[in-house]
Amino acid sequence: MQTKVTTEKAFERKYPESVALVTTRSRTGEPNAMAVGWVAIASSDPWMFVLGIDSAATTYRLIRSTRQFVVAYPNERMAKETRHVGTRHGVPGGDKLTDCGLVMQKGRVVRAPLLADAVANFECELVRIVIPGDCPLVIGKVVAAHVNRNHALRRLYTVAPGYVLKGVRPMASR
Amino acid sequence: MQTKVTTEKAFERKYPESVALVTTRSRTGEPNAMAVGWVAIASSDPWMFVLGIDSAATTYRLIRSTRQFVVAYPNERMAKETRHVGTRHGVPGGDKLTDCGLVMQKGRVVRAPLLADAVANFECELVRIVIPGDCPLVIGKVVAAHVNRNHALRRLYTVAPGYVLKGVRPMASR
Repeated sequence: MQTKVTTEKAFERKYPESVALVTTRSRTGEPNAMAVGWVAIASSDPWMFVLGIDSAATTYRLIRSTRQFVVAYPNERMAKETRHVGTRHGVPGGDKLTDCGLVMQKGRVVRAPLLADAVANFECELVRIVIPGDCPLVIGKVVAAHVNRNHALRRLYTVAPGYVLKGVRPMASR
Repeated sequence: MQTKVTTEKAFERKYPESVALVTTRSRTGEPNAMAVGWVAIASSDPWMFVLGIDSAATTYRLIRSTRQFVVAYPNERMAKETRHVGTRHGVPGGDKLTDCGLVMQKGRVVRAPLLADAVANFECELVRIVIPGDCPLVIGKVVAAHVNRNHALRRLYTVAPGYVLKGVRPMASR
């Protein structure tokens, strides 16, 4: 049975929620990254992502100016790094990525960096931005994809409010 | 280290992926439901969802005609029901929901039904549809929210390709 509650209260039941890291590179070469929880696949032919990116984020500005970004699935041992880039603003001249030990790797198509330790990386080109509510939805087409050579690595999830980030495991079948 | 692969291959690393049930009700009163894996929050003021809904789905037609739907988080014991509505087309006169034992409950604002056993239900009004690729993205505003009285219930996830649906648990902290 259901009981009516506020929407905020109901969203407390959403966990675990997926988390992605979105990397960008400025025209002057500086890399940046942010953590994004509002992320889903948006098309399979061609493959696309839809991502909710705060309009105040450096990442948003860089995506609009370069029209390129990378979506990376952090692995479950990257909680600290994900929290770091998820809770700090990128500053011009600063390097939020290397500050927290994220290792970058060159992509094939876009200038935004791959994250070497991620489970997978998707190089994307901007298709469209729509702003239905208080957050721009950035839609990007995947133009190249990469996976970690370590196939045992699994994704990281937000498992509770306040950036509690952990790996998850399926329950045993009954 | 990353290795370049096809995008399909890279998306094999996306699991667990969240799954939602989307319910609708036709103008003649028939309920319907489908399973949606491409789902994310799209705004927090007001709260919105973005959902990838196949343009051939009965759900898509009903959302366009009624401009209303409900997003429900199935609980981890609803794998069978979620697979049922996720793999069959709704047919006029048929009742895919009650066929598989889904229990409906009246919402407060929209005519689409809540799912009594879901972890949470979000009544939505259509805001906008955008079609950036091969799948319409349906954006809906949450106009009422409900949670299960059983607070121990947790969400269901797709844990592997081919509709393998299970609950998941966070790993113990190290």
